[in-house]
Amino acid sequence: MCELLGMSANVPTDICFSFTGLMQRGGRTGPHRDGWGITFYEGRGFRTFKDPAPSCQSQIAQLVQNYPIKSCAVISHIRQANRGGVSLENTHPFTRELWGRYWTFAHNGQLVDYQHLTQGRHRPVGQTDSEAAFCWLLDKLEQRYPAIPHNMQDVFYYVSQLCDELRNKGVFNMLLSDGDYVMSYCTNHLYWITRRAPFGHAALIDEDVEVNFQEETTPNDVVSVIATQPLTGNETWQRMKPGEFNLFYLGERIATNVEQLKAVAFAAPKPGNQAP
Amino acid sequence: MCELLGMSANVPTDICFSFTGLMQRGGRTGPHRDGWGITFYEGRGFRTFKDPAPSCQSQIAQLVQNYPIKSCAVISHIRQANRGGVSLENTHPFTRELWGRYWTFAHNGQLVDYQHLTQGRHRPVGQTDSEAAFCWLLDKLEQRYPAIPHNMQDVFYYVSQLCDELRNKGVFNMLLSDGDYVMSYCTNHLYWITRRAPFGHAALIDEDVEVNFQEETTPNDVVSVIATQPLTGNETWQRMKPGEFNLFYLGERIATNVEQLKAVAFAAPKPGNQAP
Repeated sequence: MCELLGMSANVPTDICFSFTGLMQRGGRTGPHRDGWGITFYEGRGFRTFKDPAPSCQSQIAQLVQNYPIKSCAVISHIRQANRGGVSLENTHPFTRELWGRYWTFAHNGQLVDYQHLTQGRHRPVGQTDSEAAFCWLLDKLEQRYPAIPHNMQDVFYYVSQLCDELRNKGVFNMLLSDGDYVMSYCTNHLYWITRRAPFGHAALIDEDVEVNFQEETTPNDVVSVIATQPLTGNETWQRMKPGEFNLFYLGERIATNVEQLKAVAFAAPKPGNQAP
Repeated sequence: MCELLGMSANVPTDICFSFTGLMQRGGRTGPHRDGWGITFYEGRGFRTFKDPAPSCQSQIAQLVQNYPIKSCAVISHIRQANRGGVSLENTHPFTRELWGRYWTFAHNGQLVDYQHLTQGRHRPVGQTDSEAAFCWLLDKLEQRYPAIPHNMQDVFYYVSQLCDELRNKGVFNMLLSDGDYVMSYCTNHLYWITRRAPFGHAALIDEDVEVNFQEETTPNDVVSVIATQPLTGNETWQRMKPGEFNLFYLGERIATNVEQLKAVAFAAPKPGNQAP
């Protein structure tokens, strides 16, 4: 199994605290020794740090823990390999361009018959079921919406349906982002929490680290964190249900079903290569 | 103007020495304060470190200088912005998937009328002329070769022709790699050097750093370095001519014109998502 970590925030926020907890599970408090990665969006751009080496020993992971990169959308993953060998090309997250935006994906679980997922323009480079599923998902989106869609409700609903299809092939816990929105899908293990004022203390489960969010935030900050297992012991994390899709935006969980999606007034998306 | 740095090697080699020289030009010995990036291939995978902040002040650049990531194909860039603002999405190198492989691109120069380069499936995310040229180049390759081509001679020759077309639009110095091959194209400023046994000492121009390559290599190592300006003062760098295309593979410059390309026995390329 692998572990996922995602963040959505309404102001650029660093993920050092949560990432420090996750990294311990990469070979110290957990068995996920087969690589790790993290993608930070900044504007329309992104940067990814990844390593096929265990995160608990990684110099690059050390840097990411100590260097507060601030972002409104983050996806991270630590890997315990099942499909595909331990290598950089099989290390999550994966990022590809669609509609002039970068889409980032990480997966926890295991799929059968993933070799039969039809391939279009997005071709896997590595050998994982996860990357095959991501390429299939992007191809499906592009087949239905060749140009940038104006109705994002339909896009998100379609993503949730595609996730249902992938769940039929096995365990499919997923995080997906286009830099603005963070989507999650749960088969069995996924939790979320939204932190907002009044902020309190939080203590990591996996490492003797505590943070007082009040010292690090302003009263208007809203930050949601999504993780395979709760990262803190003194807060209440919400457990997602099998087949549950969630959409996070600017720190808030804004929808979890088609009725809620319909109620959201989505801004028309901006195409790529235009100044934001 | 920007500066380019590329490397091709026959055994995984670190680029710490050359990268240290280049990074000084990012705001200390040179004016390229608008971001920097470096992409290392490892197997079929890659990792990119980038930052829109000046490289001479960047903590991440410090890590890359001190952490010997070993690779057979590297592309790096420091930026002095002309087209497109200073932001992460406009920071080179750019990487996209084609034929189940990751292709990486960095550009020095300035193009006019780049907005009119036709767009296909690869859409720019940022606002640079460089990313627009890269997307156009990939689209052209994919239009001519929808599936992975077996005749790589023709592919490389076609790349050189596409570069000629881009040179008609302005200054186009370029580095391009699919992880195995490193291609370069010169409009005005590009140098290369191949180091092989007997290895000697080399001293950076931009920083008081010397290296004895003999202590760091084995007798069979071959490493070529390509750069906008020579990085060392005590070695002889070859200057590329306007319109010159070069193909590097496993450390050697293997071809610079169509006759040499025809003489090379290229291995049939492996498609993506198969174990190498």
